[in-house]
Amino acid sequence: MSNTFLSVDQARAWLLERARPLAGSESVELLAAAGRVLAEAVTATLNVPPHDNSAMDGYALRLADFGQALPVSQRVPAGSVPTPLQAGTVARIFTGAPIPLGADAVIMQEQAEVLEDGRVLLSGNPEMGQNIRLAGEDIADGQVVLKAGQRLGPADLGLAASLGIAKLAVRRALTVAAFFTGDELTEPGQPLSAGKIYNSNRYWLVTSLTALGCRVIDLGIIPDNLAATRVALAKAASEADVIITCGGVSVGEEDHVKAAVEAEGELTLWKIAMKPGKPLAYGRIGAADFIGLPGNPVSGFVTFEVLVKAFLAARQGGEAAKVVATERLPAAFHWDKPDTRREEFVRVRRELVDGHLQLVTYPNQGSGVLMSCAWAEGLVRLAPGQRVSPGELLDFLPLTRG
Amino acid sequence: MSNTFLSVDQARAWLLERARPLAGSESVELLAAAGRVLAEAVTATLNVPPHDNSAMDGYALRLADFGQALPVSQRVPAGSVPTPLQAGTVARIFTGAPIPLGADAVIMQEQAEVLEDGRVLLSGNPEMGQNIRLAGEDIADGQVVLKAGQRLGPADLGLAASLGIAKLAVRRALTVAAFFTGDELTEPGQPLSAGKIYNSNRYWLVTSLTALGCRVIDLGIIPDNLAATRVALAKAASEADVIITCGGVSVGEEDHVKAAVEAEGELTLWKIAMKPGKPLAYGRIGAADFIGLPGNPVSGFVTFEVLVKAFLAARQGGEAAKVVATERLPAAFHWDKPDTRREEFVRVRRELVDGHLQLVTYPNQGSGVLMSCAWAEGLVRLAPGQRVSPGELLDFLPLTRG
Repeated sequence: MSNTFLSVDQARAWLLERARPLAGSESVELLAAAGRVLAEAVTATLNVPPHDNSAMDGYALRLADFGQALPVSQRVPAGSVPTPLQAGTVARIFTGAPIPLGADAVIMQEQAEVLEDGRVLLSGNPEMGQNIRLAGEDIADGQVVLKAGQRLGPADLGLAASLGIAKLAVRRALTVAAFFTGDELTEPGQPLSAGKIYNSNRYWLVTSLTALGCRVIDLGIIPDNLAATRVALAKAASEADVIITCGGVSVGEEDHVKAAVEAEGELTLWKIAMKPGKPLAYGRIGAADFIGLPGNPVSGFVTFEVLVKAFLAARQGGEAAKVVATERLPAAFHWDKPDTRREEFVRVRRELVDGHLQLVTYPNQGSGVLMSCAWAEGLVRLAPGQRVSPGELLDFLPLTRG
Repeated sequence: MSNTFLSVDQARAWLLERARPLAGSESVELLAAAGRVLAEAVTATLNVPPHDNSAMDGYALRLADFGQALPVSQRVPAGSVPTPLQAGTVARIFTGAPIPLGADAVIMQEQAEVLEDGRVLLSGNPEMGQNIRLAGEDIADGQVVLKAGQRLGPADLGLAASLGIAKLAVRRALTVAAFFTGDELTEPGQPLSAGKIYNSNRYWLVTSLTALGCRVIDLGIIPDNLAATRVALAKAASEADVIITCGGVSVGEEDHVKAAVEAEGELTLWKIAMKPGKPLAYGRIGAADFIGLPGNPVSGFVTFEVLVKAFLAARQGGEAAKVVATERLPAAFHWDKPDTRREEFVRVRRELVDGHLQLVTYPNQGSGVLMSCAWAEGLVRLAPGQRVSPGELLDFLPLTRG
């Protein structure tokens, strides 16, 4: 067991090195694939559009026939199969409908006059190919349209559907077991006896994991002794890919979690130079990762956002390690008393101040209560000793939302 | 039935005026409340922290006794109930544990030397109240901590738990029925016969609705005739708060949806000055809203993002109409051929270009295929006729993700 002081970047890199992407995949229906991580690239097996089709409601014609009143020789709604266009006639055609063989332009219906005898007189200056979408114009057969490792959103699923794909190969869901230690913990809804506090970590952690697409095994509060903690860990390790706990990983002697992890597997304890935050444990029990977050809810929440989210994304098989695109916004606040030894993660919102979007801080940045985290939209990361004056541009890291 | 040309802002305001917030609420357990809209403000009914407690592992003392070696008269782990501190002694105390009556400071264990006889010699320059978190310091009894209308995220649920609250009053889930019309539509996984296309709208729409916290009734593809459309609408109106369909709302004569809505209720058809986009229908069938999106997948997707998302958020009882905080980023592209009559919603990503986060466009901004939407992270909104040069600051509107 080492007891090292690490920077946030060092801790992040160390964790990401150990984040073995989940092996194996499963095939799921499109509607069940939202939020899942794609296991294999998706390649188009057809052209989009599949056939030349009309971009307008109007009339398909041979340009050579333009200028004279023309009879309507067929009617082509979307979904129908046209016959070749007879010379000297037009086809009434609708948006999305296939272009009849021989037609080389579509004139929109607003430029058509239907005569009493049913013939159609077309106006405008039609060009070859006008209002015709060509087969394969948007996606060519064989083109990679979705990359392995990406998390699937609504438009991705619509795109797969448009190619006729009904199922996608996705990484299986990462299973995360969570438990909470500390004899002072009481579940909400129960009366609070003297010296006890409510277990808040369970609620932000389980819902964050769910929002990140993990399957959660929620083991609840484990009694604060070595035997019970070992039993919980062994059970969690047999069923989960990752075990996360809150509390029990600082150097205080009342903490049984580290002894239990060492008995069941191996453990590295760190102090991270971050505020809120500081203690963090990483270990292995069998094939499962163990992550021990600080028991203080604000420290745990911020440590989870800053370090553990990226680890989980990498573990899910996603594109985790890539540089996250962060927004830079001006501070609307002074920061005069920086921590000289630790990076600070200040809870902020983006608000219109003097007509400009600016970063404002929650007044009480203490780590005693989740109020600042619930209020915040994101975090601002400040280097040790960094002061901030209004107008200074700062990186904004958005928080996980439900 | 009117047939009006509206700006995007006009259409948005018109829709939001008609978005009646859902009445009624239901009480749900915290872990089921993620993503739901809070129906009533949440007020703290206790102080946080509930009692004065230690911010450190260390020793609680009376400052008057500082400077001499002191025996340990009690041991106070978190969750225990201390006895009053005997004068001339210290209490061994751990993070989160209640402060014994009479103690007025905590000295951290790193500043303590335990002598051979068990007495403790404390060092440093302790001050009154040092390392003691006061009862009510973070949240005072009676304070509003969560506002009605907010969507509940992980930190909100953790905060409620820390106050002992086990259930929250949330708006019931907005029920949205979706169906799709057009005889050219084929479900993915089925063979595609000539003149047909795959139904992609179902997949981005249903998963977007789910991501936004709606309960979805997915009626699938409805045959393209008046009778079937009327049956589908009547069924949807009896079960859902909102009905959304894709296709059938343009002025083409093959569209039965508008006739069916007019037969079952009332309808307003618009042309919106937006690209992609344009046709949009809003109606009422009984107590249900009807929204008809364009059948073109890109037009439908962008119209949903730009206009319908805000409507649904307001309908859910949430804070929809408030100004959305948008990020402004420099363009890394030229935009030389603007549409002169319609606002354009360009599909973009944020990428590091020359070390700075900039907006890049998908090369093919045609509305034929969802490729641009799947590729994109967000939209950039350009006024009619607006040209863009590299470096120009543009508003970035993020898309719904899974």
